[in-house]
Amino acid sequence: MPNKDEITAAIQAIEPFKQSDELFKSRMAAHARVLSVEKGQVLFVNQDEADKIYIVLSGWVKLFRETLDGTQAVIDIIPKNHMFGETSIFEDCIYPYSAEATETSELISLPISLLKDGIETDPKLALAMLSSMAKYRKQQDREIEHRTIQNASQRIGCFLLRLIDQDQQGPVSIHLPYDKTLVASRLGMQPETFSRALKKLKDATGIDVKGATIHMDDVQQLVRYSCAACSAEFPCKDLKASAY
Amino acid sequence: MPNKDEITAAIQAIEPFKQSDELFKSRMAAHARVLSVEKGQVLFVNQDEADKIYIVLSGWVKLFRETLDGTQAVIDIIPKNHMFGETSIFEDCIYPYSAEATETSELISLPISLLKDGIETDPKLALAMLSSMAKYRKQQDREIEHRTIQNASQRIGCFLLRLIDQDQQGPVSIHLPYDKTLVASRLGMQPETFSRALKKLKDATGIDVKGATIHMDDVQQLVRYSCAACSAEFPCKDLKASAY
Repeated sequence: MPNKDEITAAIQAIEPFKQSDELFKSRMAAHARVLSVEKGQVLFVNQDEADKIYIVLSGWVKLFRETLDGTQAVIDIIPKNHMFGETSIFEDCIYPYSAEATETSELISLPISLLKDGIETDPKLALAMLSSMAKYRKQQDREIEHRTIQNASQRIGCFLLRLIDQDQQGPVSIHLPYDKTLVASRLGMQPETFSRALKKLKDATGIDVKGATIHMDDVQQLVRYSCAACSAEFPCKDLKASAY
Repeated sequence: MPNKDEITAAIQAIEPFKQSDELFKSRMAAHARVLSVEKGQVLFVNQDEADKIYIVLSGWVKLFRETLDGTQAVIDIIPKNHMFGETSIFEDCIYPYSAEATETSELISLPISLLKDGIETDPKLALAMLSSMAKYRKQQDREIEHRTIQNASQRIGCFLLRLIDQDQQGPVSIHLPYDKTLVASRLGMQPETFSRALKKLKDATGIDVKGATIHMDDVQQLVRYSCAACSAEFPCKDLKASAY
């Protein structure tokens, strides 16, 4: 269980809160609740009334929407030190997606009303929220671009590049942050498509895949293959800004 | 050539500017420049330094990015009474895409520095920009969802539904707002994929396609087909908020 200082540090570490005033952060910390959730536990459902925002302290939370027949579209997988639920402020306080822990996770919940008040009274916080929203918008733009231009193997290559220190020279080993089925759904692929595309990526680039560990002698193997079908150049700012 | 009142009205009509203070709007109007551009004219290129934002008065402007080998990803097609270029404020004033008129168009350009000053000094404008950014983010979320769940024909159906007054009963005729090649690239499809998918949509729903005009006896023909593969229900708020 995190103590008060750790909770304050977690709030302070959220990008748009960094520049906000101290009073706002101490009010947030005072109203923070810590939650331990099991794998599969649902935090809220798409279209629920939004009264809280969440910060992930450990584990992973999947944001998704479902059609009537149960087909799922994964919107994002939120890692630790990131927030979710905050955009509902601009959606009449209705969550625009469902949230489910994909493994045992520890979270902080904060009253959404405090963030709302903060944005209305602290121009610095409003600007920081705008800037963070613009960054996310750019990432989504890039995602839509990739779904247009890149094939499935190139998209997996791009996903792997996000997990690497981009200035790294020589051999690199990557561990997938969560299981392959979840990586597939994060990338909007059926598990079979993902397996086939991963095999094709191996054949095309010579990377070595053993379970959840991927090894390559040189990052350029992936860069040449994936970044050719992207309008950005490697190393790219969008990857660095990415949530993974 | 629009007169001063028409320019002021166009600025006033941009969603996030509606609630901003009068001084800001009159400064914007005083610095507005009207541009007439030909089909194919490029306004700026991805990664150019951003000094202006634009409002479309008539015509259409395509936002896109290109890979080194010239493959294009269309990000959006901006219709009249909508703005573009404004998110570069949060990208160190670098345009995150290229912009090209897809037909003869009339535009207003405004100095980006005025919008920047406005956001920093007028909390109402900052909030309105946040809200508009959140709306766009939700539409992108939906777009990514559709590219995951819907097949090409369902996505064309969804595109057509955006062009309709959703409360309409009985027979409906739709005219495509721009040519089919552009609709295809807006939807991230190759022209051949688009043609095949449109034919499949015709066969599955019984809609009638003649050139750029589409006719159906009842909107439900499309709703049953496309909205089954979407987490939102028809009539949906996202469609109503859409730029088309």
